[in-house]
Amino acid sequence: MKVALLGPRGTYTHQAAEEYFDNLEPVFCSTIRDVFDSDTEVKFVPIENSLGGGVMDTIDLFKEREETVTGEITLGIQHALISDSESIEEIEKVKSHPQALAQSKNIVENNSWETEETSSTAEAVTDLEEGEAALASEIAAKINDKNIIRRSVQDKDVNVTRFLVLNGEPEASDKSSLILEPEEDRPGILHAMLSCFSGHQINLSHIQSRPTKERLGEYYFYVEAQIEDRDLEKAVKCLETYGGVQKLGEYKEASRPGEE
Amino acid sequence: MKVALLGPRGTYTHQAAEEYFDNLEPVFCSTIRDVFDSDTEVKFVPIENSLGGGVMDTIDLFKEREETVTGEITLGIQHALISDSESIEEIEKVKSHPQALAQSKNIVENNSWETEETSSTAEAVTDLEEGEAALASEIAAKINDKNIIRRSVQDKDVNVTRFLVLNGEPEASDKSSLILEPEEDRPGILHAMLSCFSGHQINLSHIQSRPTKERLGEYYFYVEAQIEDRDLEKAVKCLETYGGVQKLGEYKEASRPGEE
Repeated sequence: MKVALLGPRGTYTHQAAEEYFDNLEPVFCSTIRDVFDSDTEVKFVPIENSLGGGVMDTIDLFKEREETVTGEITLGIQHALISDSESIEEIEKVKSHPQALAQSKNIVENNSWETEETSSTAEAVTDLEEGEAALASEIAAKINDKNIIRRSVQDKDVNVTRFLVLNGEPEASDKSSLILEPEEDRPGILHAMLSCFSGHQINLSHIQSRPTKERLGEYYFYVEAQIEDRDLEKAVKCLETYGGVQKLGEYKEASRPGEE
Repeated sequence: MKVALLGPRGTYTHQAAEEYFDNLEPVFCSTIRDVFDSDTEVKFVPIENSLGGGVMDTIDLFKEREETVTGEITLGIQHALISDSESIEEIEKVKSHPQALAQSKNIVENNSWETEETSSTAEAVTDLEEGEAALASEIAAKINDKNIIRRSVQDKDVNVTRFLVLNGEPEASDKSSLILEPEEDRPGILHAMLSCFSGHQINLSHIQSRPTKERLGEYYFYVEAQIEDRDLEKAVKCLETYGGVQKLGEYKEASRPGEE
């Protein structure tokens, strides 16, 4: 299936898409806006990262465009130690993006390796000499036909990214994404709108405020609701008494890494 | 008064600080983290922009550090047309940061000026030749001893930034900044915490969620409350039944541009 996603090849976005789709034919784009602009109907975009929070570009483009969310997947960033060598003893120097090096300090310091920074984890794998290894995704090793000497060498498992699928196959759905745009900029409006969810016993798993870009202090909200057997339509009718509601789609909630 | 703020000289941050402080002695820093790290006790940081939303670096540093918010000011970004010439008829080319050029399309197109991009609005002013003008802050004209040919040449007044003052002179206070950290990551916790404000008739003027960086989906909240004659202490006691509350300080609410 042709899918537009952030490139280049071999990044963690590529790995997440590979895990989600059968027979992925990736169409790599260089910005999130380019993914939304792509002629390829099905799109794959990051929505939230455990370290950086909500992905603002994605949320703003949801509001601008008419796309339907049909799925989600979470991926724990796990750096593999990748090399032409087959043995960890032969490694003297390790290359990667500065963030990946910082996230894998233990293995680097325990082995007293030299380090070299590259502009992406994927790039580190394409440029390995004897005695060198890269920290990158397992898919980068596969693409470049290198050995994975050790899997999951990062210090802690805190770097998790969640991705959404746009315009894919609809599937059994227990979650919904919505954009809420309060009619008035009055105090207490957020609390009032949230009462439509709690009143109809619908839990929110995510909320992010974004400026309307019209006036300082004027915000709209991107929310994700756990709908299961609840009556989302009633909650939407309640919400519409306070402002505009844009339904982005319903999809199956993904398990988070460690929960499977 | 010595104040740490984002540099370089002549930017809109500099102009906002100049408007807030009597006898400003600016200590320019190159990142928001450097401002927080500065030995200069009083600091001046952006918190919200009408186009970009909350300033994440500032919010995350509030949570890390022990600083006291003592004031706020909003500044509408107004580009001045600045030159060595005194007449608009002599201008053939206009230089500025790409954003400022994009925000002032009308005057540029109506006069059929050539354009040249610079890395900051402040830089454009330092490098003017005959027949050239810059789009920048009025303070940049003053610093570089240039003429302001026309004030406020941007197309629309939508670009407003709000700044906070840290560790300044406390003054009459009708607003408070707080960080709320829910004890549990359970659905409905945000709605429950907001009920402490509505229950005590305190209005929120701003709310921003930020990841705790511990686990995907775990958030804390930065809020600004309009306290006036309300009992903030009671609301805080209510909030503490749901999680941690960090009081950042009380200060006088600034008028927004156009409201004076």
